[in-house]
Amino acid sequence: MSLSQLRQSVLEANLATVRHGLVLATFGNASGIDRESGRVVIKPSGVAYEAMTADHMVVTDIDGRPLDNRYKPSSDLDTHTTLYRAFTEIGAVIHTHSTYATIMAQSLMPIAPLGTTHADYFRGEIPVTRHLTPEEIEGGYVAATGEVIVETFKGRDPLEVPAVLVAGHGPFVWGRTTDEAVLNALILEEVAKMAWHSHALKPGLKPIPDSLLDYHYRRKHGSDATYGQ
Amino acid sequence: MSLSQLRQSVLEANLATVRHGLVLATFGNASGIDRESGRVVIKPSGVAYEAMTADHMVVTDIDGRPLDNRYKPSSDLDTHTTLYRAFTEIGAVIHTHSTYATIMAQSLMPIAPLGTTHADYFRGEIPVTRHLTPEEIEGGYVAATGEVIVETFKGRDPLEVPAVLVAGHGPFVWGRTTDEAVLNALILEEVAKMAWHSHALKPGLKPIPDSLLDYHYRRKHGSDATYGQ
Amino acid sequence: MSLSQLRQSVLEANLATVRHGLVLATFGNASGIDRESGRVVIKPSGVAYEAMTADHMVVTDIDGRPLDNRYKPSSDLDTHTTLYRAFTEIGAVIHTHSTYATIMAQSLMPIAPLGTTHADYFRGEIPVTRHLTPEEIEGGYVAATGEVIVETFKGRDPLEVPAVLVAGHGPFVWGRTTDEAVLNALILEEVAKMAWHSHALKPGLKPIPDSLLDYHYRRKHGSDATYGQ
Amino acid sequence: MSLSQLRQSVLEANLATVRHGLVLATFGNASGIDRESGRVVIKPSGVAYEAMTADHMVVTDIDGRPLDNRYKPSSDLDTHTTLYRAFTEIGAVIHTHSTYATIMAQSLMPIAPLGTTHADYFRGEIPVTRHLTPEEIEGGYVAATGEVIVETFKGRDPLEVPAVLVAGHGPFVWGRTTDEAVLNALILEEVAKMAWHSHALKPGLKPIPDSLLDYHYRRKHGSDATYGQ
Repeated sequence: MSLSQLRQSVLEANLATVRHGLVLATFGNASGIDRESGRVVIKPSGVAYEAMTADHMVVTDIDGRPLDNRYKPSSDLDTHTTLYRAFTEIGAVIHTHSTYATIMAQSLMPIAPLGTTHADYFRGEIPVTRHLTPEEIEGGYVAATGEVIVETFKGRDPLEVPAVLVAGHGPFVWGRTTDEAVLNALILEEVAKMAWHSHALKPGLKPIPDSLLDYHYRRKHGSDATYGQ
Repeated sequence: MSLSQLRQSVLEANLATVRHGLVLATFGNASGIDRESGRVVIKPSGVAYEAMTADHMVVTDIDGRPLDNRYKPSSDLDTHTTLYRAFTEIGAVIHTHSTYATIMAQSLMPIAPLGTTHADYFRGEIPVTRHLTPEEIEGGYVAATGEVIVETFKGRDPLEVPAVLVAGHGPFVWGRTTDEAVLNALILEEVAKMAWHSHALKPGLKPIPDSLLDYHYRRKHGSDATYGQ
Repeated sequence: MSLSQLRQSVLEANLATVRHGLVLATFGNASGIDRESGRVVIKPSGVAYEAMTADHMVVTDIDGRPLDNRYKPSSDLDTHTTLYRAFTEIGAVIHTHSTYATIMAQSLMPIAPLGTTHADYFRGEIPVTRHLTPEEIEGGYVAATGEVIVETFKGRDPLEVPAVLVAGHGPFVWGRTTDEAVLNALILEEVAKMAWHSHALKPGLKPIPDSLLDYHYRRKHGSDATYGQ
Repeated sequence: MSLSQLRQSVLEANLATVRHGLVLATFGNASGIDRESGRVVIKPSGVAYEAMTADHMVVTDIDGRPLDNRYKPSSDLDTHTTLYRAFTEIGAVIHTHSTYATIMAQSLMPIAPLGTTHADYFRGEIPVTRHLTPEEIEGGYVAATGEVIVETFKGRDPLEVPAVLVAGHGPFVWGRTTDEAVLNALILEEVAKMAWHSHALKPGLKPIPDSLLDYHYRRKHGSDATYGQ
């Protein structure tokens, strides 16, 4: 992918999160990576969504070192690059403050797979991280946020469950492409909304059977996928 | 009804579900049947709602065999045709992922008749199916979904209660015509929303008296109907 | 007020309920009365909101006898006229299916005065009627609905609490004028929404003190009113 | 700041609260103060939002004495001026009836810091006032509302927690500028919505750790601020 294509995709991903109502005020940021060149493109800091163009997107290397200096990158950059280094198959990361996903994150409630909409996109529970320690917070909060996500995914496949709830904070979502990450962010919010309502109505509600979870997930993903409805 | 009229009606039913906010992303599908010719018309798979025309609608026979091959039918086709074969008086089927109906489906909570809006459209409880077995899921999931709906309606009149919640999945709704099915899908969502809120506020809330249920249902349906407000 | 003015006001009240999102589909109706001539003007039955003009409004006497025969009156006419006969100071009646007021009606939960928004418009609890008996339902349901409202207001001043929740059905709201009734219907829905959320969060929550209720109510009503914010 | 600039800012703050959906009907008012001249500018009473211009804004001194007499000031003026006299660093006050903040106010539930969105804007719990006594209500309700807010902030820094819930009534919010106060009012409503949902799902939920609260607050405020995302 050319750098100008990546800039455009990342711009569109940032604007899509606003259009879908997933960000409050200016809280949210999307990035993408070109794995061949190792270049990361991320939303700038301090530029209003209405005025944002592809040209405002900030380019860094995979360690977050700026490759140009016209705009300041999003203050969450180090979380994004930590994820790109650890999850080598992902191509885009989005952080939103979408209401129900954030409610679940601050309620420290993982999102259990309660229905097939969940299963179509997330193969199992969407986990909550532990809280960071005071030392982690003071010693590099943004990178530590990425690290606690990576820790939470030990033993999980980040492409099978492409989202996490950071305790007391909100969701991070990813995907192979910016389009996929945007769709995952949108579905996450709906799935979080439905999970909240199901748990509030029926405390102790069980997840759907594994057979149904696997069937739906495989219907959309992998070699047997029969995509579309 | 001519085939081109049916294509147009099915297109409009699909677009109406989007306009009423009953589908998330591309999840949802509407179909119609012409009982004289036995032809079923259903939403295509993989065509964006914005680009969809009557010409994209897919025609099959009542067993789901394609009568033309230009577009792929919705992947839920076999559920629709199973319902058309079993419920011989219905003329249209709609599957949505409307939020509250899906919440009730994944909470395994039937929608009891708690008010007259319910009674105007549904003569009694809207049931939840049982979960499918692993064997049913692997041996033809989409048709099995139709069969478990039919099983759930043993002893019920599908025209008196023109909707069902598929466990862990979401609602299927039907009607004599596509317009009726769209209206039933819209009312179902409102009724599900109100039921969720009533049960969350008052666990154990009783349905309305049978006399009120029957009076309201008969006001809108059958030979004594005094339609309109 | 001239008849043509009243037709126009009643048309606008009907359209305002739709614009404010207080009616679902075509469920809802507003009427007005000219006390001097005794003429009642009400929404017609079976005319779509989009096509509705002042000319479609139906004129009857205070007992619901049609004074012209071009359109059929709303099927809820007898509830409206029963209220006009019993509550001699009211000039307009509105029936909506607004979501939270209907939820409270089907949950059989009166709306306690929990805040000053309530107190500004309703001097005390908004009551729920009892359920109608099977005999009342079969013997003239629509008029009986009006009568059970009147029964519920024995000992209450209908101008101080200009709304009621009909058990298992939904709200009726009134006012001295159609404008006042529309505003009361809008406030009722917000007050019902807030009451639902307060009760769900804090079962057993107490109403605000009488001194605060009275102060706010008097600020907006009566000889000491200092209207506006 | 010139008086005409202040009028314009206060107008915009009033219109912004409507645009953000924070006021119901005409309930709500914003004001600003020029600390140099001591002039307060506030929304007029009885002027529709659609017709409101900078010229309608009412100018008073810090004790609420009108400096011109063309329009009547908002009936909540004395609450605003009481806050300006007590909280000497604030430059703007806004009163809204935003839904969830009002629900928390009438539920007598302070908003605990449950997440980082809260921490970014409010350094700790957003408190609820006590109820006013009957004597306070009758002896000057509007000023007493201001005084009970001041009483509630004894030992708190009003710039660190720029909002309060008045028991049984609703929120008052402030800031150094009208823009800041509008943003605080918008964030308050989102934070209240999330807190309601978290408490309803998980009664007894604990606030986030102090280290996380302080880190996020300092990220946006004070000498170490790294603003933007």
